[in-house]
Amino acid sequence: MTLPRLVSTVSELRQLVRDAKLTGKRIGLIPTMGALHAGHLSLVEAAERECDFLVVSLFVNPTQFAPHEDYQRYPRTLEEDLSGLSRHRVNAVFAPSVAEMYPDGYQSYVEVRELSSRWEGVHRPDHFRGVATIVLKLFTAAEPDFSYFGQKDFQQLAIIERLTADLALPIAIRGCPILRDPDGLALSSRNRFLSGAERERGLALSRALAVAGEMARRGERDCGELRAALQEILTQADLQIDYATVVDRTTLEVLSTLDRPAVAILAARVGATRLIDNALLTPPEMEERSV
Amino acid sequence: MTLPRLVSTVSELRQLVRDAKLTGKRIGLIPTMGALHAGHLSLVEAAERECDFLVVSLFVNPTQFAPHEDYQRYPRTLEEDLSGLSRHRVNAVFAPSVAEMYPDGYQSYVEVRELSSRWEGVHRPDHFRGVATIVLKLFTAAEPDFSYFGQKDFQQLAIIERLTADLALPIAIRGCPILRDPDGLALSSRNRFLSGAERERGLALSRALAVAGEMARRGERDCGELRAALQEILTQADLQIDYATVVDRTTLEVLSTLDRPAVAILAARVGATRLIDNALLTPPEMEERSV
Repeated sequence: MTLPRLVSTVSELRQLVRDAKLTGKRIGLIPTMGALHAGHLSLVEAAERECDFLVVSLFVNPTQFAPHEDYQRYPRTLEEDLSGLSRHRVNAVFAPSVAEMYPDGYQSYVEVRELSSRWEGVHRPDHFRGVATIVLKLFTAAEPDFSYFGQKDFQQLAIIERLTADLALPIAIRGCPILRDPDGLALSSRNRFLSGAERERGLALSRALAVAGEMARRGERDCGELRAALQEILTQADLQIDYATVVDRTTLEVLSTLDRPAVAILAARVGATRLIDNALLTPPEMEERSV
Repeated sequence: MTLPRLVSTVSELRQLVRDAKLTGKRIGLIPTMGALHAGHLSLVEAAERECDFLVVSLFVNPTQFAPHEDYQRYPRTLEEDLSGLSRHRVNAVFAPSVAEMYPDGYQSYVEVRELSSRWEGVHRPDHFRGVATIVLKLFTAAEPDFSYFGQKDFQQLAIIERLTADLALPIAIRGCPILRDPDGLALSSRNRFLSGAERERGLALSRALAVAGEMARRGERDCGELRAALQEILTQADLQIDYATVVDRTTLEVLSTLDRPAVAILAARVGATRLIDNALLTPPEMEERSV
């Protein structure tokens, strides 16, 4: 168990990666905002399985927070993060300053337009512009062959897949399954803000997804029925719903009939904390060839 | 004299460039919209002097034209372009289709925000978003060490310099001097649209820049006076002025006193054709250390 090398500048990271590439190593990048939990570490494990040189970035990205959001309050746990990563084969931890990533006069932003305007984008208008921008900057800094993202942030994953395809970046994007606590709550760095009672109510999200998944498996193809079930369960738990619906897995457009790969997406507030969760829904006739 | 290799896909281009890099070659990229003239070829010559492997792209980029602009009418002269390039040490000509660069469902755009909103941006609101997007795509496809742009499109050059710095791309941007016909008219692919009489009137742009340059050399530091001289000469030639002013060389903000590196920028319409031109203005006391 050794602490991974801590890197704070783009130029040092690029040099390390290029040296590794010269020896034929496949580079894996896991972008994170730190406050690592088992979900993040499962991304590291996925990278360990197919890459030879692993970079984990820890950067709480200011441009993806709106002024009223929790940028200041977002958990920062560098010591614990490094300790958790030291149990994995991580070659470099990239933890730049805000000034390194957004120097004086910074004004370049990338947008994935239609995909960013829906769902989370309605509630967080500039959020995905900030996400796409920092991910592109991390891609150009680390020049990875593979990059790993959790399916927990499903819209973010769809946007990064689209961005990578649109810019024809030579990077394979890997979406990794959501990790859950034994009670069903999807792991999130923000879960630590939940009181015991709030956490109990927050379990309605995973319960709703389980019910909708079971309905779909039993043959329900009317997305209106699935949507009604999702919303009823969240409402019963007294959660404030931002959205709870069933969408096309690639375009994230609302579906009326479950006739293609889809995803049930949820966002709801419990007290001051906003929770999101989702689950893939595959029409029974496509079950065989689902990923 | 051999015709350079014609490449139409990003993946083929990337493979060629990566093979060249493995042998230690420095890659130079000259992005163009084709319709090449001596100005473009001077960029190729600059690249020949410092690069070992040259890529010239020929792509009339639809996303930088507004619906009412001359995308359809923009000159396309592939045969002549290839013939002109064959007299230079060009390794690959990248001439992709629109579908190759903007595949179905394309929706990712990059913006350099403040710099894009001024001057040309006022008259062509989405123009620089299209420019920045295609240049970034060409950069990610060709992975050049150096890239060459004419100072003729001064705002474009400033935006690309800013984009490259903001995204920390490992590319050196070279701005190359404006080439002019013997009568002073700056070379432009659109000059072919000018009638003889329009061309005569269009000479007012270079004449105005020469006068302002001479005033500055004689010690005029009041940018209001320089601006008045520029506008008077354009007005006398019966040109319709879009802008004619003196700005900071990096931020492109209007200057009141010529106390730092500056540029006089002009845009005016003669008949159906819009002409732009510019000239660097260096305060006399900084003359020694100007580039």
